[in-house]
Amino acid sequence: MTDWPALTATEISAALARRETTAVAVAEAFLARIAAEDGAIRSFITVSADQALAAARASDLRRAGGHTLHPLDGVPMAVKDNIDAAGLPCTGGMELYRQRVPTADAACVSRLKHAGAVLLGKLNLHEGALGATNDNVAYGRCENPVKPGYTPGGSSGGSGAAVAARFCPVALGTDTMGSVRIPAAYCGVMGLKPTYGLVSTRGVIPLAWTLDHVGPLARSVADLALFTDTMAGWDADCMESRAAQDGWTARYEPAKGAAPLAGVMLGRPAQVDAVGCQPAVLAAFDAALERLAALGATVRRIEVPGWDPGKARRGGLLISEAEGAFAHAAEMDTRPEGFTEGFLMMLHYGRDAGSLRIVDAQRRIREAGHACDAAFRAHALDALVMPTAPQAAFPHGAPVPANQADLTALANFTGRPAVSVPMGTDGDGLPLGIQFVGRHWGEAAILRMADAFTAQH
Amino acid sequence: MTDWPALTATEISAALARRETTAVAVAEAFLARIAAEDGAIRSFITVSADQALAAARASDLRRAGGHTLHPLDGVPMAVKDNIDAAGLPCTGGMELYRQRVPTADAACVSRLKHAGAVLLGKLNLHEGALGATNDNVAYGRCENPVKPGYTPGGSSGGSGAAVAARFCPVALGTDTMGSVRIPAAYCGVMGLKPTYGLVSTRGVIPLAWTLDHVGPLARSVADLALFTDTMAGWDADCMESRAAQDGWTARYEPAKGAAPLAGVMLGRPAQVDAVGCQPAVLAAFDAALERLAALGATVRRIEVPGWDPGKARRGGLLISEAEGAFAHAAEMDTRPEGFTEGFLMMLHYGRDAGSLRIVDAQRRIREAGHACDAAFRAHALDALVMPTAPQAAFPHGAPVPANQADLTALANFTGRPAVSVPMGTDGDGLPLGIQFVGRHWGEAAILRMADAFTAQH
Repeated sequence: MTDWPALTATEISAALARRETTAVAVAEAFLARIAAEDGAIRSFITVSADQALAAARASDLRRAGGHTLHPLDGVPMAVKDNIDAAGLPCTGGMELYRQRVPTADAACVSRLKHAGAVLLGKLNLHEGALGATNDNVAYGRCENPVKPGYTPGGSSGGSGAAVAARFCPVALGTDTMGSVRIPAAYCGVMGLKPTYGLVSTRGVIPLAWTLDHVGPLARSVADLALFTDTMAGWDADCMESRAAQDGWTARYEPAKGAAPLAGVMLGRPAQVDAVGCQPAVLAAFDAALERLAALGATVRRIEVPGWDPGKARRGGLLISEAEGAFAHAAEMDTRPEGFTEGFLMMLHYGRDAGSLRIVDAQRRIREAGHACDAAFRAHALDALVMPTAPQAAFPHGAPVPANQADLTALANFTGRPAVSVPMGTDGDGLPLGIQFVGRHWGEAAILRMADAFTAQH
Repeated sequence: MTDWPALTATEISAALARRETTAVAVAEAFLARIAAEDGAIRSFITVSADQALAAARASDLRRAGGHTLHPLDGVPMAVKDNIDAAGLPCTGGMELYRQRVPTADAACVSRLKHAGAVLLGKLNLHEGALGATNDNVAYGRCENPVKPGYTPGGSSGGSGAAVAARFCPVALGTDTMGSVRIPAAYCGVMGLKPTYGLVSTRGVIPLAWTLDHVGPLARSVADLALFTDTMAGWDADCMESRAAQDGWTARYEPAKGAAPLAGVMLGRPAQVDAVGCQPAVLAAFDAALERLAALGATVRRIEVPGWDPGKARRGGLLISEAEGAFAHAAEMDTRPEGFTEGFLMMLHYGRDAGSLRIVDAQRRIREAGHACDAAFRAHALDALVMPTAPQAAFPHGAPVPANQADLTALANFTGRPAVSVPMGTDGDGLPLGIQFVGRHWGEAAILRMADAFTAQH
């Protein structure tokens, strides 16, 4: 009997199409796995078994009637708990919102539900999506399925953990400075931050509206493309929405042949050496670059003058704190007990920073973004390639490395798409990630690189 | 004998190419006119006669040697005095910078000089480029050449006045909320604010780095295209620079035939009725819309939900004040006597506004920009069409209308290109302007509309 939770969304979609199973059977298999194992991992805040089974039954009826909606019809998913799903609590990982039950789906959830995807539940996250451990005092310390006692990363830690633990084939996360890609790297799965504005953020509890993105985590590149394609598109009711060119798609031609990346120009920024990467990360990254070269890519060591990763990341943090304070301004004063002291302190810090520090931080961010644009232009790059995070997952309770988002935040500052995929493990068996940062709207191109790279593993 | 100051840059270029005159003769004619008449108008802060004549002689020598650089070789121009030109004072219209003499050209000036253009001098402006009258206590009250005692508009008032007075065929201005287009409208000339990032702002004294643009004022659409084309282009050393598509050009195919605008979709926003336009402006605008329809354009009255012109403009003003305070932060404290009390008060207001009001203002700006993007999409627009300003020029000393930039600032908030051209006069003979706001990087398209519209006059 097939172990459905072991399959990808694309494989489940194919099995459903071949009538080898039903959406109900698949959903039941995932729900059983969650029930049996998530007690120790705490990746879910809410499991929506009843809604999921009802949706799966409806999908099966459609299929029996010969009217499926989309390749995702009947395919399970889960979403980070700062993304609204009608009728389920949406907490943002905050005590403040424990009782908050939206009546409408977020735009991205709505698009996926209209495609027939089956929502299994809402996933744990770092409080307010601002933080990197997912050690959430209100909803539980989420564990890294690869190594209990270790963080899955943040802020979309529950999304990374749930996909790694095979509680869902695909999970949605949000990414303001790296919050999709860091948990993907720490948990040994894949994650895509799309181009800014490609996926509507309407119905997502905001952290920093100028940097927030919704993106999928999965165990296959094809799944990332399928979910991104389904969520993408102009949303007149979302002020952050941007219209892609007509004909835009995340679908890519799978890389084939002996040199599938021939003609691809990759830039390896010198900053990788300066952010304090663990030796195991650098070793794995060197091996990954050799593999990419063997696949036909040209890998060029480049300078990216003007990008100071630490300085830019600190700027991004201040903007997250200030825009976060804007988003939660009323509640900071009226319901301070709904925040942890640490989170509240960060928001106050942003609120009190003042005009000039905000302008300065925005300039630092733009400086980094411009440096990246200039590097793409100077070297005719197809992508920048970097480790996703400078370190592997660390134990819960250990000091949080300050440089965690140094290499991911650049893509948020530029709005460029970035995908993280596994590049092996460190000496303790902890997963490591590599990221490709592409051209604006160039999701298909970086997914093709990710596909070629991971197909070699 | 030809009256060179009466000609456009394009015409002068052609006369030079036909050897009907020399660059020196042309420069002398403009300098003589400035010397004779600018005493009453005060459009120049610095006239660079020696530099100009030296540049003109060099141009004539090149031409004699058969090696002209560009169609602009030998053509005169002048630039607003917040744009650096090597060896000339650049004051920004501020007492603070009376002695400031940059040693390098701004990027835009450098490009024009490398094309052979001859710089006649530096033009008056409203103090710090923040304000709408050009009643400058440090460098003189600039008069509107059409009607003495009236403002030429701001902040590029000297640029509008100098072009209207035929002291130069083309002048550069800067536009943060409308500062190229408003003086163009008030003085009866043309002005283009290009797409954000198309023309480098390196070497321009900043007001608000997220909203500042450099653009030309002229008396012909062809001149706007020629200068914009020459200034445009990626600048790796300017963090606000954006790369246009390969092959981008501002040059347009001149509109021909009975219906030169057939197939062009124009949107007339309902907001035009809400900002308090003078009756003469509305009457001229209605007539202009009829003319556009007669030229073949489809003119649709549209709603642009989400754009509140006053609210957005107030947001833009706060950002200008805060980013302006960032730009002048050190001098505000160390040399407050270099600012007028009014300007200093505005900068302090921006500096003291605090994080949340900055974030709020940026969201208002984006809200307006998004509303504009949504309208373009919903109605498949080629351009929005609006009066440039809700009023004609007003007497110096009269209260400044608060709504002056309500209709221009939208293009700064979206980054879209916008061109203002004359649409007749009010009952007192004061010029009025109409603006076309186009698609990103669509300078050629709106210049073509402007060409068709003005060719009818």
